[in-house]
Amino acid sequence: MLLDRLRDLLGHDHVLTGADMAGFGEEFTGHYHWQPLAVLRPATTEEVSGILRLASESGTPVVPVSGGTGLNGGHEAEGRLMISLARMNRIRDFNPAARTIAVEAGVILQTIHDHVAEAGLMFPLSFGAKGSAMVGGFLSTNAGGSNVVRYGNARALCLGLEVVMADGAVMNLMTALHKDNTGYDLRDLMIGAEGTLGVITAAMLHLVPAPTARATALLALPGFAQALSLLNRVQAGTGGAVEAYEYLPDLFFDRMAKYKPDWTCPITPAPVNILLEIATTVPGDTPQSRLEDLLEAPLEAGDILDAVVASSDAQRNYLWHMRESAAEVSLNEDPLVDTDVSLPLDLIEPWLNRMNAEVARLDPKARMMAIGHLGDGNLHYTVYPSDKGFVAPIRDAISREAVVMGGSFSAEHGVGLSKLGSMAKYKDPVALRTMRAIKAALDPKNILNPGKTVPEA
Amino acid sequence: MLLDRLRDLLGHDHVLTGADMAGFGEEFTGHYHWQPLAVLRPATTEEVSGILRLASESGTPVVPVSGGTGLNGGHEAEGRLMISLARMNRIRDFNPAARTIAVEAGVILQTIHDHVAEAGLMFPLSFGAKGSAMVGGFLSTNAGGSNVVRYGNARALCLGLEVVMADGAVMNLMTALHKDNTGYDLRDLMIGAEGTLGVITAAMLHLVPAPTARATALLALPGFAQALSLLNRVQAGTGGAVEAYEYLPDLFFDRMAKYKPDWTCPITPAPVNILLEIATTVPGDTPQSRLEDLLEAPLEAGDILDAVVASSDAQRNYLWHMRESAAEVSLNEDPLVDTDVSLPLDLIEPWLNRMNAEVARLDPKARMMAIGHLGDGNLHYTVYPSDKGFVAPIRDAISREAVVMGGSFSAEHGVGLSKLGSMAKYKDPVALRTMRAIKAALDPKNILNPGKTVPEA
Ligand SMILES: Cc1cc2nc3c(=O)[nH]c(=O)nc-3n(C[C@H](O)[C@H](O)[C@H](O)COP(=O)(O)OP(=O)(O)OC[C@H]3O[C@@H](n4cnc5c(N)ncnc54)[C@H](O)[C@@H]3O)c2cc1C
Ligand SMILES: Cc1cc2nc3c(=O)[nH]c(=O)nc-3n(C[C@H](O)[C@H](O)[C@H](O)COP(=O)(O)OP(=O)(O)OC[C@H]3O[C@@H](n4cnc5c(N)ncnc54)[C@H](O)[C@@H]3O)c2cc1C
Repeated sequence: MLLDRLRDLLGHDHVLTGADMAGFGEEFTGHYHWQPLAVLRPATTEEVSGILRLASESGTPVVPVSGGTGLNGGHEAEGRLMISLARMNRIRDFNPAARTIAVEAGVILQTIHDHVAEAGLMFPLSFGAKGSAMVGGFLSTNAGGSNVVRYGNARALCLGLEVVMADGAVMNLMTALHKDNTGYDLRDLMIGAEGTLGVITAAMLHLVPAPTARATALLALPGFAQALSLLNRVQAGTGGAVEAYEYLPDLFFDRMAKYKPDWTCPITPAPVNILLEIATTVPGDTPQSRLEDLLEAPLEAGDILDAVVASSDAQRNYLWHMRESAAEVSLNEDPLVDTDVSLPLDLIEPWLNRMNAEVARLDPKARMMAIGHLGDGNLHYTVYPSDKGFVAPIRDAISREAVVMGGSFSAEHGVGLSKLGSMAKYKDPVALRTMRAIKAALDPKNILNPGKTVPEA
Repeated sequence: MLLDRLRDLLGHDHVLTGADMAGFGEEFTGHYHWQPLAVLRPATTEEVSGILRLASESGTPVVPVSGGTGLNGGHEAEGRLMISLARMNRIRDFNPAARTIAVEAGVILQTIHDHVAEAGLMFPLSFGAKGSAMVGGFLSTNAGGSNVVRYGNARALCLGLEVVMADGAVMNLMTALHKDNTGYDLRDLMIGAEGTLGVITAAMLHLVPAPTARATALLALPGFAQALSLLNRVQAGTGGAVEAYEYLPDLFFDRMAKYKPDWTCPITPAPVNILLEIATTVPGDTPQSRLEDLLEAPLEAGDILDAVVASSDAQRNYLWHMRESAAEVSLNEDPLVDTDVSLPLDLIEPWLNRMNAEVARLDPKARMMAIGHLGDGNLHYTVYPSDKGFVAPIRDAISREAVVMGGSFSAEHGVGLSKLGSMAKYKDPVALRTMRAIKAALDPKNILNPGKTVPEA
């Protein structure tokens, strides 16, 4: 029997069933609940390979999971074998001179941050779930977060991969080179594939020099027009040193007061509040005074209504802590429509106006709130409908309206289950057909996270 | 008959045969000569689609060509239909505020440079063939060049694509978004695929603000150790402002004296000569004096033997002109082994020593010269063997020795025909198998540039 063979392979303790699987059966959003067949905890690439050999021989679907913080139903696994990468948590090689680190799929994002900081380096990917999300998951979702505006998303920070394919074959793409044109770009195909094309077991990540000085501010602005011209002003005035440009609406601070009552916002919130960070590695640069200079004119003109510039690491951490609680503070109601759209920057405000009107038309009692990585045109537009029945039509309307305006219905969270419907309706049909052909070619028995990411024809 | 149907589709003047095909039958390197069946010159995406429909119905292989400056046999087309994209040379949309430009596949790289400069923007991809290479070709080879150290290669500069697939279907991936996680990364799969997975007809390119000040120097150094520590010094001292770090050996200046006798090198060449450029967009920055400061200590220590810092645009252009003549000045003998390897930066010198010894063992009368994008660990190692018979074993040895040291046998030029043998021998077998599966899935009749890039099993 399959589970026995898996126990022979992994050891009895690493094939979890029944109550031992607690914590592996639901998603942070509360949208998905499931009962896996078993949770497998391999410790090596060879064990992952062995699992996939058995799974493909027996035609058994598998669902990889790393940190389990995904927000789109991607690791839902009703009746399926889950492969937890958490025990594959070794740092294989850290090369500060080359600015690379080779890590296994189960290494936690925060662990990478801490590990490379000692050498004056930084792995710039960062977001609220950094204490739990792992390499395999942030690559498989091509995660974004707060520093994409300067450093790009997970894809831009990954040089090489090790992937176990559907039949258990191990594909070695673990290069540390910055230039390598030897055939098709399989690395970027595997990144963002949400476990449907292979199981990522290790990666070579690209590091950058840690900033030698930073300036962080929380600003209250009257509207998006002022926010976008401020972004341009700070980018131009610093030579592109903006590391984060995060949008928080006044409604967010209302919710924060309710759900995190011991926190206080250091400014008087306005309709558009921005957490802004700039940083430098140039010796002698003084970003704090440069930022204060750049804020002066808009403050005088009334284009910034209130501002605080962090004057210590503790203050900076406080501001970031607030920002990083956003998912917790916003995704805590039921029913809930949580989304993740991107738009051309100049269309953010028209889109929000149009969207708010459309949601109000569908469900006049709905409340809505948008939070986002404004520097990337990325909004997490959240709706609290008055009834479960409104969830599906509102979700669909949000995807549609994003695409109509040249945007995307999934900026950084991926497709998983929750956006399969939008994929089917709004993605270019030739692209869909191409994805299906690739899926069928690389996973002919359809055992790798089946039914996710690419909708059936 | 097929050619008649193509004439109906494109018009008589745009189906070239016989003597009208002059210029479409050989490669810059002189390695490949061929006689196409016909050269087709579509003007629109619809016409490309029509060509591919006819080609796939009749099972006729097609070979796309843009500027025809590729260096690996990728556009060789003996007895095949060539699809020239040169007439698809419209700029569809230039959006300076969003820093994007939508261009057709036949737009010349230099044209993009000139077009966006007026708006204070830059498309950072640049190399010797920029006056001829076109969008379709530089994306299909994922070209690199001199500015990769700061801005990445062609892939990093492309946001969206329009691609005609094997059966003529048009795949629309023409987004201008920086964040879009809606399924598999088909864009990066098409980039670098050398026309074997589809024909690129248009692209959305990403622009950056043009530097407001630059400093450019030509430096003579005693060896690679000094060159690498200087690179680190300048990167750290400028906060990563190095735009180009190009290596030219003394032998290059000997050849230049021979083939470009009216040019004079403004320094006394040493074993390692570096064309260094830094640039800034920070208001008030003075890169020239910053660079002069940074060069002072190594000059005094004898780690730089001679130096000239360009004091005018004309001087800068002169230095770049020299660098950009490198292909012309080095790839002009027969027999010739032209290669394109990348290596971890710290292994450049050991590799060169090992390689020179190995080539001398194979062919004691061979001469060799390496030129390269040192900042990326990318060397164009060229060998002039004493006899044609040495070409194949030397080529193979170069690929092997690169891979042995953790490098790549194709850093930026791609695979085409010339590196098919290296792919078969040195690429991870699971990666090869995966590439074959993708090729078969997307081009089941094997009509798109067949026999290139991915070696047969
Ligand atoms: C509080 C909070 C804040 C967040 N903020 C952001 C944000 O700002 N930006 C952002 O992009 N995301 C954000 N997310 C979403 C989520 O954290 C990211 O998608 C994260 O990268 C997922 O990593 P994980 O290890 O938890 O993946 P998991 O949840 O374990 O898996 C995610 C997907 O990848 C697949 N997968 C997992 N491991 C592998 C593997 N080894 N090989 C192949 N496939 C695999 C799974 O099957 C699933 O489909 C946030 C989530 C939370 C809870
Ligand atoms: C003097 C000189 C200097 C060079 N320097 C560099 C350098 O520094 N860095 C570097 O990377 N390269 C360099 N090259 C190589 C070459 O210029 C680049 O590879 C260039 O990007 C090719 O562009 P092209 O338009 O000429 O492509 P082509 O030669 O027309 O085609 C190249 C490949 O792409 C395919 N192709 C062409 N158009 C399409 C399309 N529309 N859709 C799908 N497939 C297509 C072809 O079939 C072929 O396989 C140099 C070449 C020369 C001659």
